[in-house]
Amino acid sequence: MQKFGFIGLGIMGSAMAKNLVKAGCSVTIWNRSPEKAEELAALGAERAATPCEVVESCPVTFAMLADPAAAEEVCFGKHGVLEGIGEGRGYVDMSTVDPATSQRIGVAVVAKGGRFLEAPVSGSKKPAEDGTLIILAAGDRNLYDEAMPGFEKMGKKIIHLGDVGKGAEMKLVVNMVMGGMMACFCEGLALGEKAGLATDAILDVIGAGAMANPMFALKGGLIRDRNFAPAFPLKHMQKDLRLAVALGDRVGQPLVASAAANELFKGARAAGFGDEDFSAIFKTIER
Amino acid sequence: MQKFGFIGLGIMGSAMAKNLVKAGCSVTIWNRSPEKAEELAALGAERAATPCEVVESCPVTFAMLADPAAAEEVCFGKHGVLEGIGEGRGYVDMSTVDPATSQRIGVAVVAKGGRFLEAPVSGSKKPAEDGTLIILAAGDRNLYDEAMPGFEKMGKKIIHLGDVGKGAEMKLVVNMVMGGMMACFCEGLALGEKAGLATDAILDVIGAGAMANPMFALKGGLIRDRNFAPAFPLKHMQKDLRLAVALGDRVGQPLVASAAANELFKGARAAGFGDEDFSAIFKTIER
Amino acid sequence: MQKFGFIGLGIMGSAMAKNLVKAGCSVTIWNRSPEKAEELAALGAERAATPCEVVESCPVTFAMLADPAAAEEVCFGKHGVLEGIGEGRGYVDMSTVDPATSQRIGVAVVAKGGRFLEAPVSGSKKPAEDGTLIILAAGDRNLYDEAMPGFEKMGKKIIHLGDVGKGAEMKLVVNMVMGGMMACFCEGLALGEKAGLATDAILDVIGAGAMANPMFALKGGLIRDRNFAPAFPLKHMQKDLRLAVALGDRVGQPLVASAAANELFKGARAAGFGDEDFSAIFKTIER
Amino acid sequence: MQKFGFIGLGIMGSAMAKNLVKAGCSVTIWNRSPEKAEELAALGAERAATPCEVVESCPVTFAMLADPAAAEEVCFGKHGVLEGIGEGRGYVDMSTVDPATSQRIGVAVVAKGGRFLEAPVSGSKKPAEDGTLIILAAGDRNLYDEAMPGFEKMGKKIIHLGDVGKGAEMKLVVNMVMGGMMACFCEGLALGEKAGLATDAILDVIGAGAMANPMFALKGGLIRDRNFAPAFPLKHMQKDLRLAVALGDRVGQPLVASAAANELFKGARAAGFGDEDFSAIFKTIER
Repeated sequence: MQKFGFIGLGIMGSAMAKNLVKAGCSVTIWNRSPEKAEELAALGAERAATPCEVVESCPVTFAMLADPAAAEEVCFGKHGVLEGIGEGRGYVDMSTVDPATSQRIGVAVVAKGGRFLEAPVSGSKKPAEDGTLIILAAGDRNLYDEAMPGFEKMGKKIIHLGDVGKGAEMKLVVNMVMGGMMACFCEGLALGEKAGLATDAILDVIGAGAMANPMFALKGGLIRDRNFAPAFPLKHMQKDLRLAVALGDRVGQPLVASAAANELFKGARAAGFGDEDFSAIFKTIER
Repeated sequence: MQKFGFIGLGIMGSAMAKNLVKAGCSVTIWNRSPEKAEELAALGAERAATPCEVVESCPVTFAMLADPAAAEEVCFGKHGVLEGIGEGRGYVDMSTVDPATSQRIGVAVVAKGGRFLEAPVSGSKKPAEDGTLIILAAGDRNLYDEAMPGFEKMGKKIIHLGDVGKGAEMKLVVNMVMGGMMACFCEGLALGEKAGLATDAILDVIGAGAMANPMFALKGGLIRDRNFAPAFPLKHMQKDLRLAVALGDRVGQPLVASAAANELFKGARAAGFGDEDFSAIFKTIER
Repeated sequence: MQKFGFIGLGIMGSAMAKNLVKAGCSVTIWNRSPEKAEELAALGAERAATPCEVVESCPVTFAMLADPAAAEEVCFGKHGVLEGIGEGRGYVDMSTVDPATSQRIGVAVVAKGGRFLEAPVSGSKKPAEDGTLIILAAGDRNLYDEAMPGFEKMGKKIIHLGDVGKGAEMKLVVNMVMGGMMACFCEGLALGEKAGLATDAILDVIGAGAMANPMFALKGGLIRDRNFAPAFPLKHMQKDLRLAVALGDRVGQPLVASAAANELFKGARAAGFGDEDFSAIFKTIER
Repeated sequence: MQKFGFIGLGIMGSAMAKNLVKAGCSVTIWNRSPEKAEELAALGAERAATPCEVVESCPVTFAMLADPAAAEEVCFGKHGVLEGIGEGRGYVDMSTVDPATSQRIGVAVVAKGGRFLEAPVSGSKKPAEDGTLIILAAGDRNLYDEAMPGFEKMGKKIIHLGDVGKGAEMKLVVNMVMGGMMACFCEGLALGEKAGLATDAILDVIGAGAMANPMFALKGGLIRDRNFAPAFPLKHMQKDLRLAVALGDRVGQPLVASAAANELFKGARAAGFGDEDFSAIFKTIER
């Protein structure tokens, strides 16, 4: 029976850890607020008192924290990961953090004698529950192989991208394309509406052709109904676009269309739509 | 047995007419260069000497001409459609023309006592052969109903959009979204490559998520291989973007992201890539 | 004493004709509404009954009409310019029209045996009164030389640009730069204000450096005071940007920044600011 | 006789310090490479051995360092400014640094009991020599007043903008407008050339109208001659645009036109023009 640690049991993390437990792995867990660990414990997971305890007792530990600050606290804080890592044990951070944070954690883990892999995911609550996430791993190759039996319980597409930082960069690239697509889609819907075409007809035609994709299918109807309840908040999309454009700056890649989309999202954020779904860019475009 | 006329037997038209014949319709055909009619005739289609003869002998005639000039010649020319239309007979122009040309033809047909429908299609050679085109009809409602048995042999999605001109406008909206998506996709690929990510990995990740669509799946690999053999020529895409942005001008819809994409395509055209596939915008973005 | 005809006595035309009269030229005038000719007549100008009469009686006639429709009516209408032109007489159209209209008038004048020059102006009421317009002439070189004594009473900068159409194109190029500058200026003011910098300080700093120009100096204070009373209406600027971007399309010049500015002006027009000054783009940028 | 310290005697600093000496001030100087101090000493300036010595002996010290790293070294390094500041003495950093660096230095100076003013300048070598710089001061108000007699020898326009950081922000705003203007100007020139208009004619017309400004007058002829010898390097302009767009991100101001200009400059940098003048963006636009 495989043995894994799992740190961070929020919406994503608890769904992911559950898939490990259900698949028969032995899982040692920790979460800042202990009540969130109860459901997992009831399913058979073992509770540890600190992150340090988790990594000390497991050959490979996954982590899924809310943001860079939480990821750093769990690693560098008192009774944190660094205090328990070493002797070749593996730490796999699946949180979405910027490349710099990821590299800082990775360097510290390795300096202590541990091994490190970043592995941000593409996909949200539903794929986490279904075990169909896309896992963008980067870093230690051997650790990647050892973590694979765990990854396979959590994701449907697992990919190794190179050195630490490449996982975060891939996420920026993918989300930049997503943001640009949404901007173009919304411009098309707004143009069609102003020209007197029925939105349903536009969605129908796009949905029947070579551009058809699950995102347009899902968001199209919601935009038609002016339903912008957040699945992926607009402010996060704009942050990713900003970071992607900045990456373009660093590597010398001009991004004319994506930078235009970024400004549109920025306008939507300035208009107060930052906490709505990223499809709320439509409201800025149509006004 | 249903009886239809069919004028224009190029790559698209001959495939479409063949589907009518194969489905058991009685089809009267005409083409400027008569040799192209031979294959159809061998399958059982009846040949007419002029467009006029076709429309005179059929309650509903479809036309699929190469461009606005050909569409106008077949309608207004000697022994053309206008000379044979009247008494409520129907003319369905499926050519891709601008709204103004379409309206000119429609007005003339109606003035002669005929009925008119514009019905441009989305989809190219393969869907034409498979009978899976998307048909964007607009104009006479009764004629739409009468043409439906024919449409159903040629397309998988048939839609009526309102007055003559709306079909052409829908095509502009859809192609604008397509052009914008391609620009964003290529910026993502170029950014990824400069950042050191493998193109295959990017395609893999995008192909596994909510953005996955047949266009990215097909073009992605071709772009990776720098294969820009034309399926949809870049200069045509740029023309559609120009017309879509002009439509936005007319109806008061700003199009920040699509206008940026238009300038990128314009740059690609200026760089000499106009006759390559529209995915050749990648070459302008990555340089 | 030099003899000139002058057709069209609106705000611009009457100021220009007055400068000819004041400088001692013999001027024959015509205007659609005759009352506007009275002031000029009181100053010594001779009144004619029709445009035809003006051109018949003068070796060189200037025209300053409101728009392309008026320019065409005066030329092609009953008792119009075409009926009196011929025998090498010169017609100088200083109206702002598109290149196509200008060429249509020029071809007709020449076909009748006359000579033609287009000569749109840069500058509005004040420079017209002061005789400090910029005159963008194109067409017949000899006529240009013969008209020069008249031009020199009306403008401070007179320039011959080539064949008919080049004058209109120069106006588009210049106005495109003007529109783009205004967009960038307003973005700077809006950014500064949001960052907490005093608008007066920004205007002061820009006004003291290498970018200092009369337009920023004049418009800057008006923007600060949210005074958008129209000197050059926003809808006209957007039209010129549209035509300039279309010219770029025709000659193969991508215009990334100017197309972005065009969309901003389009957004301002859609927001209802079309009849305000073109600096009202600020309201769209700052919101 | 007024007494000032001056640290940093590069191209800018030595010209500025010379103006202080020539105006009869008593000036104590220091420069990393001592030979640069010789000319000043010959004119009557007093040499100090370290930055610390300068600030210890003067009520107000100006500094003009090459970049943020040099500014930090002079302040925080051994025998640096911090070791000698205190007892209310004033330190005026005129180097061009980012707001964060400026604030770090300011906080440290104040913590030691000194007073701090940032005062970046707009203008390069010639205005430095002529004493016609634009000085963008921000920080301690009393120090601003005490430094004024010195500022007046170095600049023609001196302005106080608020708290430390506002000077750097003003520079970003102004340079963003400058970059956007240059992009629009170059697009106009490129469009005109492709349309067959003579560049000299375009420059003439723009130079005669309301947009006329010293920058277009100077750069226009150089662009026509394809002379891109660096006065203000393109990579620095692109960096300022990047920081200005980032400032817009922070304060919630979308910058559609300026972001487009930024991508054009980024493209020019990627094409290898980073060390040429910022007008070399023309080469990217016209290709």
